[in-house]
Amino acid sequence: MRNLDENTITDAVLKRHEGASNVRLGAVMTSLVRHLHDFAREVQLTEEEWEAGIRFLTEVGHITDGNRQEFILLSDTLGLSMLVTAMANRKPVGCTEATVFGPFFVGGAPVHRNGDDIANGAGGEPCFVSGRIMGLEGEAVPNARIEVWQADSAGFYDVQYEGDTHRARAVLHSLPDGSYHFRSIVAEPYPIPHDGPVGKLLAALGRHPWRPAHLHFMITAPGYERLVTHVFRDGDRYLDSDAVFGVRSSLIADWIHHEEGVAPDGTRMQSPFSTLAFDFVLNRSS
Amino acid sequence: MRNLDENTITDAVLKRHEGASNVRLGAVMTSLVRHLHDFAREVQLTEEEWEAGIRFLTEVGHITDGNRQEFILLSDTLGLSMLVTAMANRKPVGCTEATVFGPFFVGGAPVHRNGDDIANGAGGEPCFVSGRIMGLEGEAVPNARIEVWQADSAGFYDVQYEGDTHRARAVLHSLPDGSYHFRSIVAEPYPIPHDGPVGKLLAALGRHPWRPAHLHFMITAPGYERLVTHVFRDGDRYLDSDAVFGVRSSLIADWIHHEEGVAPDGTRMQSPFSTLAFDFVLNRSS
Ligand SMILES: [Fe+2]
Ligand SMILES: [Fe+2]
Repeated sequence: MRNLDENTITDAVLKRHEGASNVRLGAVMTSLVRHLHDFAREVQLTEEEWEAGIRFLTEVGHITDGNRQEFILLSDTLGLSMLVTAMANRKPVGCTEATVFGPFFVGGAPVHRNGDDIANGAGGEPCFVSGRIMGLEGEAVPNARIEVWQADSAGFYDVQYEGDTHRARAVLHSLPDGSYHFRSIVAEPYPIPHDGPVGKLLAALGRHPWRPAHLHFMITAPGYERLVTHVFRDGDRYLDSDAVFGVRSSLIADWIHHEEGVAPDGTRMQSPFSTLAFDFVLNRSS
Repeated sequence: MRNLDENTITDAVLKRHEGASNVRLGAVMTSLVRHLHDFAREVQLTEEEWEAGIRFLTEVGHITDGNRQEFILLSDTLGLSMLVTAMANRKPVGCTEATVFGPFFVGGAPVHRNGDDIANGAGGEPCFVSGRIMGLEGEAVPNARIEVWQADSAGFYDVQYEGDTHRARAVLHSLPDGSYHFRSIVAEPYPIPHDGPVGKLLAALGRHPWRPAHLHFMITAPGYERLVTHVFRDGDRYLDSDAVFGVRSSLIADWIHHEEGVAPDGTRMQSPFSTLAFDFVLNRSS
């Protein structure tokens, strides 16, 4: 344990936790230390670069608070989030695919009834969303808890504004036939927050921060696996360059534009609006 | 760029920054992303473990401030700091070896003259430190800037206390013959701060947080490479299990204990004291 050099240090670090009572933690840390050291050796990381890395992580930590999660943003933009999501969601064909959770979920969203307007003042063209929650055999999943959240037409989530008002964010429950429907606003593409260290990193790497327009859903129901996913808007210019690598073809849907007239729920709209229909197929939990 | 799976995502992420104008940054990030993804695949990182990782890093970020650098502590305890130090300091035989920088350096230390007591109230047995700064040919290095910092007998650095008072931390300059000498306190072993997330991680891994007693030195002089190192105290029980892997045999020295009497600088000491002699050999800068 003395005079460790750039090669012997790795095994010395691993030896130190070989007695860890949490065997899984020991295994995870062994792999992490090996890859971290291999990375540093491979690029011959300099002291200045190490310092820059420490400064970067410190900035990421300091900009993170209850409403902003820059570490998730970092994981998302490095593709780690989508990788973990993919590994955790190997589902039978026919199930709705999962995608990244993202940094904008918050608990405590208001509970709404089907048919409610969940926008609560969020700006954007009205959009009527409907569909069904079902299982692989087509069976209805009633009373599923549906959390939905989205950005407004300016590209911001409610949590990115001052104050604690929830907008375009709600909890709903599917009806006895598995159906759900609500009114909100049309999703638009938005840049992930890029005024912080992650945005600076993307810019330095020549990467844009945009995500294609999407609605977030998290759906839970007894007897089924939790589904965290998006619905993406067909035709979006960023579908092939999502900053967080989350797009799946099966999650792309048509937002159908309508001129003024009668909305699906019977509301007489004085201005243009859109409709979106999307069904979710849950996997049975084992 | 759609439908990326757990294997195809890595190349998709790398492709995104292949146009980076900073070629070195692109190369570093390519290696980092590869190893990060390989790690996640190798351990089949779960969503819960990913969430725990995000929470851990968030805690590390939030406990870090101007006086506490938990990210450096993390790097130190994972052996990354010593690895980077080793790669950056491949020096000719005969030069004083470098070791980890540590999280307790701060700028703005008071400038002292040789012979001063730099303890400034830090508790501990008085210690008279002396030696020479020289080059590989034995040439004196006059007017070298010597930054020294150490913990007190309770195991704390000045920055770990309330207030901004510098204690046992100073800037000195070598004399025309390359020599330096100052009075401070005897170094004692101390645990790295272990009341935060890094301490929790060490505990979960069955690792102790102790470092063997040491004095930190950073020495700079025109024409020479900067030297960041420690002097370790012989006989310390933690020399073979330093929590940050920094011990080098060539940096271990005798702290000689004396009963009351006349100190090397002529001071008549009424109580026991120690002396430490250590010479530093700098590498010429290229
Ligand atoms: Fe989003
Ligand atoms: Fe130290």
